[in-house]
Amino acid sequence: MNRLEIRRPDDFHAHVRQGPLLAQAVPMSNDFGRVLVMPNTVPHVLTAADAKAYREAIVDAGASFEPLMTISIAPSTTPEIVREASVHGVVAGKLYPDGVTTNSEGGVRDLADLEPVFRAMEECGLVLCLHGETPGVFVLDREAAFVETTLPWLVTSFPGLRIVLEHVTTAQAVDAVRAGPAHVGATITVHHLAITLDDVIGDRLEPHNFCKPVAKRPDDRAALVDAATSGDPAFFLGTDSAPHLQEAKECSGGAAGVFTAPLALAVLAEIFEARGALDRLEGFTSVHGADFYGLSPSEETVELVRHAWDVPASIDGLVPFRAGRTLGWQIVRDS
Amino acid sequence: MNRLEIRRPDDFHAHVRQGPLLAQAVPMSNDFGRVLVMPNTVPHVLTAADAKAYREAIVDAGASFEPLMTISIAPSTTPEIVREASVHGVVAGKLYPDGVTTNSEGGVRDLADLEPVFRAMEECGLVLCLHGETPGVFVLDREAAFVETTLPWLVTSFPGLRIVLEHVTTAQAVDAVRAGPAHVGATITVHHLAITLDDVIGDRLEPHNFCKPVAKRPDDRAALVDAATSGDPAFFLGTDSAPHLQEAKECSGGAAGVFTAPLALAVLAEIFEARGALDRLEGFTSVHGADFYGLSPSEETVELVRHAWDVPASIDGLVPFRAGRTLGWQIVRDS
Repeated sequence: MNRLEIRRPDDFHAHVRQGPLLAQAVPMSNDFGRVLVMPNTVPHVLTAADAKAYREAIVDAGASFEPLMTISIAPSTTPEIVREASVHGVVAGKLYPDGVTTNSEGGVRDLADLEPVFRAMEECGLVLCLHGETPGVFVLDREAAFVETTLPWLVTSFPGLRIVLEHVTTAQAVDAVRAGPAHVGATITVHHLAITLDDVIGDRLEPHNFCKPVAKRPDDRAALVDAATSGDPAFFLGTDSAPHLQEAKECSGGAAGVFTAPLALAVLAEIFEARGALDRLEGFTSVHGADFYGLSPSEETVELVRHAWDVPASIDGLVPFRAGRTLGWQIVRDS
Repeated sequence: MNRLEIRRPDDFHAHVRQGPLLAQAVPMSNDFGRVLVMPNTVPHVLTAADAKAYREAIVDAGASFEPLMTISIAPSTTPEIVREASVHGVVAGKLYPDGVTTNSEGGVRDLADLEPVFRAMEECGLVLCLHGETPGVFVLDREAAFVETTLPWLVTSFPGLRIVLEHVTTAQAVDAVRAGPAHVGATITVHHLAITLDDVIGDRLEPHNFCKPVAKRPDDRAALVDAATSGDPAFFLGTDSAPHLQEAKECSGGAAGVFTAPLALAVLAEIFEARGALDRLEGFTSVHGADFYGLSPSEETVELVRHAWDVPASIDGLVPFRAGRTLGWQIVRDS
């Protein structure tokens, strides 16, 4: 097969930034039809009003995608804030445990305090998006700790709450989502399907492959590829594309995040093809997530062609995933 | 206790570099009485003649320590090379499996080919120093693979060969050395006693804590601290201090290595004190290694005093371990 036409994909997890980076980052996601925009700006997007202002800034920055807005579930979040957000079109609340990733300091420490907030989300139909890592635990065990403790509590306590365990990185998380009820889904990033910890610290240090949660072991990656290519509707694409300026990555105290948005579909096509699962790519990128969020899959299509192209070393100061490598599939864009 | 006098320590594993870096790196190790100098320059130190020239360069660069010279055990090494090296005062041969760390490309692939070389080392009394990681294995499992396969083969095949498993990072390696015969020892670095993988990739990315082998889990670190502070003579100090210019660390494809030499003893004093084992510091730093190598422990002493001081952010373009932090012990140097 040398060309592939699929429904226009959605990205159910992306960072499009703010300030000077916004105008750079937003168009990088324009291959997607809808993008669930993360709220961990500085300050966070906390209310309907914040989300409205951020949405307008994103549209003004040249989005050809529909921004799906989120609010950050913070210690200050109330049921009223949730209801107001829902009324104004916010589709999800994002929960960052305290200090687990970029701009998550001051995050939630005790989930039980938020019970009324989760109830309100349940009632309004807001999806709960989870950065599923428990703070204070050894880095490689954080997701497992979250999956063993926090996730079961949320799933059991709020049976009507749709929950997305985001950017899963371990076989254990995949198993938990597979075994869980239908109201629990998971996003998988492009880079976690492609790399392991070997690509971060295995040879020389590669800051552009460093992200949270960090990539894990080869058998974890294999479980993620299995899940993504299985056709199981619980798993769908959320790139977690996270552009940072090169100097914020290549330094002492480098930022976490992998910048994948503009090459996400090309890399995915390679991964799915290697598994003989190109026929399941559309489900993962364009159908399962929409279904989970209660949206219609796109009526538009995108086309991928088999064409060798070199990923640039830098895109305006942002180093993309697979910089300098040759990819075998390319998305067709109107020039 | 506010001051501590111990025999002058030896560092049984350090990189003092070459070219422009040599003059910077050499004096950084001058707290030590003897320094076992690693041969992975470009090109490697392969022969007695190479070692002699390198030794002279080190002395000319201002060493107040005695350089203990090593040759690199390469595919080209012969028993004659070993004998010649031994005659000229080389004390150890260093084995780098192919591609496991800085400048180790083209290293040894099949150890069985080197059997005559190991026999010659056995006969001459050259110590075999091992970078104990198996190439091609997932990064966190490389030391375990080496300890399970290569190490037992060497220990069993060459019962008269003194073997040092260098910079051990796992509880498994500690156990193997503890359970092994007296001709097998291990060096432990300062940084592996102080950090885990959390300090490399747990929060933001810290390239100055990135080294080979990478720091492992908290229980691995605990096993290393147990071993170092236990008084077991099989364990002794080898800092693996590895200065790299800041720009070679803070980049895509950053170099492995932690630069600890000038603050090694201060950090060790803190670690041993925290374990209530200051009385065992001298054994670890100044006696066990000398005994293993058949050298007399130093008759000189160094003094450490309790004194808060700030580790500089940079020492002439080299970022030291614990840069910007305050340490509680300081070595007394003649000014």
